[in-house]
Amino acid sequence: MSEALYSTPALAAIFAPEAHVAKILAFEAALARAEARAGVIPPDAAEAIGAACQVERFDVHALYRDAARAGTLAIPLVRALTAQVAEPGRAYVHWGATSQDAIDTALMLQLREALPLIEADLLRLAGACATLADAYRHTLLPARTLLQQALPIPFGLKAARWLGLAVRQARAIRAQWAGLWIQFGGAAGTLAALGDRGLAVAAFLAEELGLAVPDLPWHAERDHTAALAATLGVAAGAMAKIAHDIVLLAQTEVGEVSEAAAPGKGGSSAMPQKRNPVDAVLAQAAARLAQAQVGVILGAMAHEHERAAGGWQAEWQALPDLLRFAGGAVARVADAVSGLELDAARMRANLDAGGGLMLAESLTMALAPHLGRAEAQHLVQALCGRAVAGAATLRDVALADPQVRAVLSPEAIAVALDPAAYLGSASAMIDRALEGYHILLAERR
Amino acid sequence: MSEALYSTPALAAIFAPEAHVAKILAFEAALARAEARAGVIPPDAAEAIGAACQVERFDVHALYRDAARAGTLAIPLVRALTAQVAEPGRAYVHWGATSQDAIDTALMLQLREALPLIEADLLRLAGACATLADAYRHTLLPARTLLQQALPIPFGLKAARWLGLAVRQARAIRAQWAGLWIQFGGAAGTLAALGDRGLAVAAFLAEELGLAVPDLPWHAERDHTAALAATLGVAAGAMAKIAHDIVLLAQTEVGEVSEAAAPGKGGSSAMPQKRNPVDAVLAQAAARLAQAQVGVILGAMAHEHERAAGGWQAEWQALPDLLRFAGGAVARVADAVSGLELDAARMRANLDAGGGLMLAESLTMALAPHLGRAEAQHLVQALCGRAVAGAATLRDVALADPQVRAVLSPEAIAVALDPAAYLGSASAMIDRALEGYHILLAERR
Amino acid sequence: MSEALYSTPALAAIFAPEAHVAKILAFEAALARAEARAGVIPPDAAEAIGAACQVERFDVHALYRDAARAGTLAIPLVRALTAQVAEPGRAYVHWGATSQDAIDTALMLQLREALPLIEADLLRLAGACATLADAYRHTLLPARTLLQQALPIPFGLKAARWLGLAVRQARAIRAQWAGLWIQFGGAAGTLAALGDRGLAVAAFLAEELGLAVPDLPWHAERDHTAALAATLGVAAGAMAKIAHDIVLLAQTEVGEVSEAAAPGKGGSSAMPQKRNPVDAVLAQAAARLAQAQVGVILGAMAHEHERAAGGWQAEWQALPDLLRFAGGAVARVADAVSGLELDAARMRANLDAGGGLMLAESLTMALAPHLGRAEAQHLVQALCGRAVAGAATLRDVALADPQVRAVLSPEAIAVALDPAAYLGSASAMIDRALEGYHILLAERR
Amino acid sequence: MSEALYSTPALAAIFAPEAHVAKILAFEAALARAEARAGVIPPDAAEAIGAACQVERFDVHALYRDAARAGTLAIPLVRALTAQVAEPGRAYVHWGATSQDAIDTALMLQLREALPLIEADLLRLAGACATLADAYRHTLLPARTLLQQALPIPFGLKAARWLGLAVRQARAIRAQWAGLWIQFGGAAGTLAALGDRGLAVAAFLAEELGLAVPDLPWHAERDHTAALAATLGVAAGAMAKIAHDIVLLAQTEVGEVSEAAAPGKGGSSAMPQKRNPVDAVLAQAAARLAQAQVGVILGAMAHEHERAAGGWQAEWQALPDLLRFAGGAVARVADAVSGLELDAARMRANLDAGGGLMLAESLTMALAPHLGRAEAQHLVQALCGRAVAGAATLRDVALADPQVRAVLSPEAIAVALDPAAYLGSASAMIDRALEGYHILLAERR
Repeated sequence: MSEALYSTPALAAIFAPEAHVAKILAFEAALARAEARAGVIPPDAAEAIGAACQVERFDVHALYRDAARAGTLAIPLVRALTAQVAEPGRAYVHWGATSQDAIDTALMLQLREALPLIEADLLRLAGACATLADAYRHTLLPARTLLQQALPIPFGLKAARWLGLAVRQARAIRAQWAGLWIQFGGAAGTLAALGDRGLAVAAFLAEELGLAVPDLPWHAERDHTAALAATLGVAAGAMAKIAHDIVLLAQTEVGEVSEAAAPGKGGSSAMPQKRNPVDAVLAQAAARLAQAQVGVILGAMAHEHERAAGGWQAEWQALPDLLRFAGGAVARVADAVSGLELDAARMRANLDAGGGLMLAESLTMALAPHLGRAEAQHLVQALCGRAVAGAATLRDVALADPQVRAVLSPEAIAVALDPAAYLGSASAMIDRALEGYHILLAERR
Repeated sequence: MSEALYSTPALAAIFAPEAHVAKILAFEAALARAEARAGVIPPDAAEAIGAACQVERFDVHALYRDAARAGTLAIPLVRALTAQVAEPGRAYVHWGATSQDAIDTALMLQLREALPLIEADLLRLAGACATLADAYRHTLLPARTLLQQALPIPFGLKAARWLGLAVRQARAIRAQWAGLWIQFGGAAGTLAALGDRGLAVAAFLAEELGLAVPDLPWHAERDHTAALAATLGVAAGAMAKIAHDIVLLAQTEVGEVSEAAAPGKGGSSAMPQKRNPVDAVLAQAAARLAQAQVGVILGAMAHEHERAAGGWQAEWQALPDLLRFAGGAVARVADAVSGLELDAARMRANLDAGGGLMLAESLTMALAPHLGRAEAQHLVQALCGRAVAGAATLRDVALADPQVRAVLSPEAIAVALDPAAYLGSASAMIDRALEGYHILLAERR
Repeated sequence: MSEALYSTPALAAIFAPEAHVAKILAFEAALARAEARAGVIPPDAAEAIGAACQVERFDVHALYRDAARAGTLAIPLVRALTAQVAEPGRAYVHWGATSQDAIDTALMLQLREALPLIEADLLRLAGACATLADAYRHTLLPARTLLQQALPIPFGLKAARWLGLAVRQARAIRAQWAGLWIQFGGAAGTLAALGDRGLAVAAFLAEELGLAVPDLPWHAERDHTAALAATLGVAAGAMAKIAHDIVLLAQTEVGEVSEAAAPGKGGSSAMPQKRNPVDAVLAQAAARLAQAQVGVILGAMAHEHERAAGGWQAEWQALPDLLRFAGGAVARVADAVSGLELDAARMRANLDAGGGLMLAESLTMALAPHLGRAEAQHLVQALCGRAVAGAATLRDVALADPQVRAVLSPEAIAVALDPAAYLGSASAMIDRALEGYHILLAERR
Repeated sequence: MSEALYSTPALAAIFAPEAHVAKILAFEAALARAEARAGVIPPDAAEAIGAACQVERFDVHALYRDAARAGTLAIPLVRALTAQVAEPGRAYVHWGATSQDAIDTALMLQLREALPLIEADLLRLAGACATLADAYRHTLLPARTLLQQALPIPFGLKAARWLGLAVRQARAIRAQWAGLWIQFGGAAGTLAALGDRGLAVAAFLAEELGLAVPDLPWHAERDHTAALAATLGVAAGAMAKIAHDIVLLAQTEVGEVSEAAAPGKGGSSAMPQKRNPVDAVLAQAAARLAQAQVGVILGAMAHEHERAAGGWQAEWQALPDLLRFAGGAVARVADAVSGLELDAARMRANLDAGGGLMLAESLTMALAPHLGRAEAQHLVQALCGRAVAGAATLRDVALADPQVRAVLSPEAIAVALDPAAYLGSASAMIDRALEGYHILLAERR
């Protein structure tokens, strides 16, 4: 239940014990139908099996307890299912399959439900970013590198870069989603128990479940699963980046954004005046938790021979946790950005607070054609030093400097030190990001 | 519930939502008592607060739901508690404390229950190892380096090295357990709201809860927590080592040990003849999951200023998971070793299968005083090659070699190739390990 | 130099300090040419800059020493380069760029050299796997699940599954390689210093260097880099799987494969008879080291604002290490598989050693149509128990069992217990894997 | 060489290839002396071996090249050493030892040099923190929780908490250092080749090298190594915490500290006015790199049987990297704190900028005895809202509020809103931290 803080209710439901058992039952029912279509088992056996594959009939708690002893959930579940199935189905339950076929395929069915939810939240986030990118195209704030003010940028550019992150993650998640496939190989990956009908059954099984068919069973080759995990880990990292920006922008001393207020949200038990960026904070926590699961899954890839003795079993916990936490991070960031409140006046005040020092580069570039870049940089460094020492603006110092005045007029100095005139390609970049978003939307339609 | 596979029921119960809320309430009640003792709040206020601090009175599910919005469980809990407290206590609930004081201290209370359970399982494991070390002092099997047979060792030595691992982990866990302390600093770590009574209240609070008092609050300095996490991660790794040995010894082709059979344990859904080392396999999975949490906790140590914006919040999930999974790994390995079935005949057969090649070093050592070590090694390498090529035993080849016979008699060759005569200090080492275990037991009494 | 064990000389050379400096110089020269083409700087300035961009002119050791103080290699390098450039170029060195533009783009240039080397080794590995898959299509050995013998499979199927892994990693690496792009945004990502020519310069720069142009600069959005890292981490995991299989197959008690012998390879300092699977062992070590870097890179994704204060700087070490170690793992596994020596007799002996127990599933399947699957499984479990207890083969026990004989003739029993008759779709699966490989080869041509 | 950014020259030297070879030679020489003392080999053999154990005699580059083939550095080194040794020593080189004895013990010798360097830098850091803690006992700045201003604290308290971190890490590192021991077990951990003299030789060997003797060899039980690694990982995390605080305090908008300026330090290639917190930034990068190695070492603990096939081999790179990077992080943070420049005026300005909102808790506490805590908190929340809305100070709003004025006089309000009067136990906490430091210093004397 502590996962409530890091997941969404919908994702938690997909990976709840009942839902897991239901998916294994869906595999068993589909397997029976596929085998009936392939002429491997009688049609009425498949019907009897399908009729019994209803999660309400099973004691999920007892199944998990037995799984802890059996070493896998599939063994007690197949036993319990067999007991539920009426003749003539009983003899054909789980026919030719192995535990891992059932468990891995059930996972794929869970992922097929979970990944679209995460993609939807990424699109929600992208929409919120696109709105900000467009709306704040001319609202300036300081760019910060190594957390030092650097140059002015429009807030719209910051949002556009978040937008690019969201769009790329949505694409990456969708690509994973499209590649979900069945697991089906039988006890040793040869489908030996199905004679020459193995691949036919596999094809029907995939069709029944709406999944793809892999070239080969993948019981012990987890690159597909690991790549999926890595994609989610990258998405979690992308969320951490946006969340971290929000937390930093929301600092009392920066004060450029705050998360939307809501009853019961973001207060402090000790300090009534505080408004904490709760969503961004918990998104960062969820992202850390998600990425740790990627390490588990990568590290567990060295499965032994035809089935792993530990590595696969670690995936059972790690992959659902990864989905829950990565999805939780996405949802939190989508919430945070959707409700983000901006303080444009504070942005401008922060920009101006440095006395124009931030436009040192602009002044350097203006001087460089006359003095050379190195010389110009040297001179501007001296001007900055003088400005800091005398608590003056860079403009005042520049106007007073004979070397500057020898090559630049007061008007040229004013232009060189105007933040709005030193934005380069920012607007074109915003357009590019928005265009990428609209292409994605068009594809989704 | 999938955690049933990687945890024990007792550990799962300690970290269940109700138990968590109960521990926070225990903090609030103890805080009120401590503040009454320090003269900060009226005694009847403390009584009223204490009377309300019963988990049954709270809707735990609703608290977690509200926590997801508030960003911490303490905020809705303090609110709900305040509503429950009769006058004159209501005004003094959570007096001078901050959310993190409650949550971190509650965690320490959970750890105080959890760590002894893990230590007890480590002692159970140590006991089982000690029994094996002593009982199989003269039962030989091949040592394996890089999974190649190396030299004969007694199984008792293998068990003695497991014993050493278990004993050292038990000590390390106990040391952590002894160092558990309260968290108490108030909103900014100064105990400002308590005026000059802060440290007095802290001392009483620790006394009430049976925890230690740290020099300073540690809201944002997590080295203590991280060291505890690391200790559990090392213990998990120690369990993985033993579990991995068991899995390898239980391989069909090795067949030297198997886990105890039990109804519903270790069968295969497709292959009725199999008996899988379920405990060792799931211990390895649990160890991987545990160690991943160590990475989360280490990586989250860079808490911002006086309270973290993400790193601390990740600990809420990572630390309980770590305890559950590390404890689950210990319990599984203790079960596996306690019930371990040995096949001494198979060990001997594996030892003899190599035609004595394994004793090549012994023969080298016997020849070395006569030929020099390099020359002896060179010669024995040649003998081994001849033995392999001719499918002969090393003994036959050695007896037939004039260079060997020039310096060693047939008797000397027989001695050099007798596994039981080439065990060096193995027995003394077993004694040392047993002695270490008995010292530990004596200390625990 | 200890990296010699985990890397290849060619990869080590690409990431050596001199090579790194050379790539930064390549960026600076290309930038100057691009700016000259865009009319931003005079053509003879670009020429002067290009002439100075030769790594031999620089004291690489001193640059790194200064970088440790400056916080980035680009700062002392630009300073040193400026000193080397003749007029009129001096004023235009690094014009409009920022340190991160130079360093990130240099990294992409290094990756463009490194990734094809890794892909080539993956293709070499795939070729070796394909040869084995085809050659050992009828050579049987036991499949092992949880390291217990399960069912017979052809070694060719094992090799086919390795082949699938290699082919998929080669595709994944190639896809990353195709997506390498420049970094170019100037001090704050707006290309402010280039006025309205920023995007034009970016396009020329990419053309000069043969890299792609991203939609937006990506100084603080590292999903691209992280996805590349993850792909390498997955490839490392795939190598660990194959290497682990080799180590397990090479165990003395299994003895089914060994790595090719070579002078100075795989001996033991103490045991002359040993032949260690050195390549597989070091591949596993390299894979672990590689995957740890993925964690660094994912964990560092939360770059602050427009440039990170720590996360990016960690990539400088982590990404080159990742390439070195992942590439080392691939090369080691390619070596191991290319030279793999198989012992088919030993495979058959291992298969037969179980007295046919491994074919219990086959017998179950043969009995199931008559008795029902559950009943058949129950009966076969009893037969297996009797066989183990009496040290008899499953065949003998089955022939002696009246319930079996009531439904199966001795011939039917013999067929049910013939390993070669119970391979299901193994051969078709091998064909699929080979076909996938040939498609890849055709694409590469 | 890129490690120059994350390590110190002294640590880099300890783990350089030459130094590594020298330490293995030190093991071989000491082993020979120990065996001579135990009467196992002739004294003049030990002398001859000792005479040859000089690193200058060896081609280190060739040894590493051969190690890549042999799978371990010890094999080619023992071969080369044997060639160098004059008779009668040649026959006794490496007598009774195994490669891992040499390599693990050499590592312990390297650690014995490296750990004191790291401890010394931690003490240097502690000294700098202690100076700050004492000097800035009355210099107020805002505490920040979740990066929101919370309450006033003295900068001295912040430094005292850093001090506590440094002191505890110094203690932890020293404890590891004291526990360094030899590795000595021979080919299979039994010291078989030494007959009944094994433990005697072990004791002499440890004495010769100034290391401890473990109960048992630990070739495959790595809890000791893993605990050492974890200690360094925790220390790295502690450094990341301090470094992160510095980076955050040095933000342009916060401006409370900056790193000491130095020629070539912290400038920007594009922005002449910038002064980047280079040491703190690189410390954070180094800490990330260090902690990743802890994951490698924990994850590799499941060594197979008596010697690992991959896990140990990963340690060869991971442990030295861990020492280098953790030590680099410590040195960088010690540098940063030693030269830290504080801006007390800026701290005060930041404190006052919130219009006293930060003292809301103090006002709440002042009101609580009269109104109850919940009511007081509610009222103060309303006052804060009014203050923010009207851009007024909390003081003005409080003075104007009849409910406040009904229970608090203007003087009481002034006291409640005076930062210096609301510091609780801060000063006592600073004293505690200083006392802990002085105790440590006294112990070191």
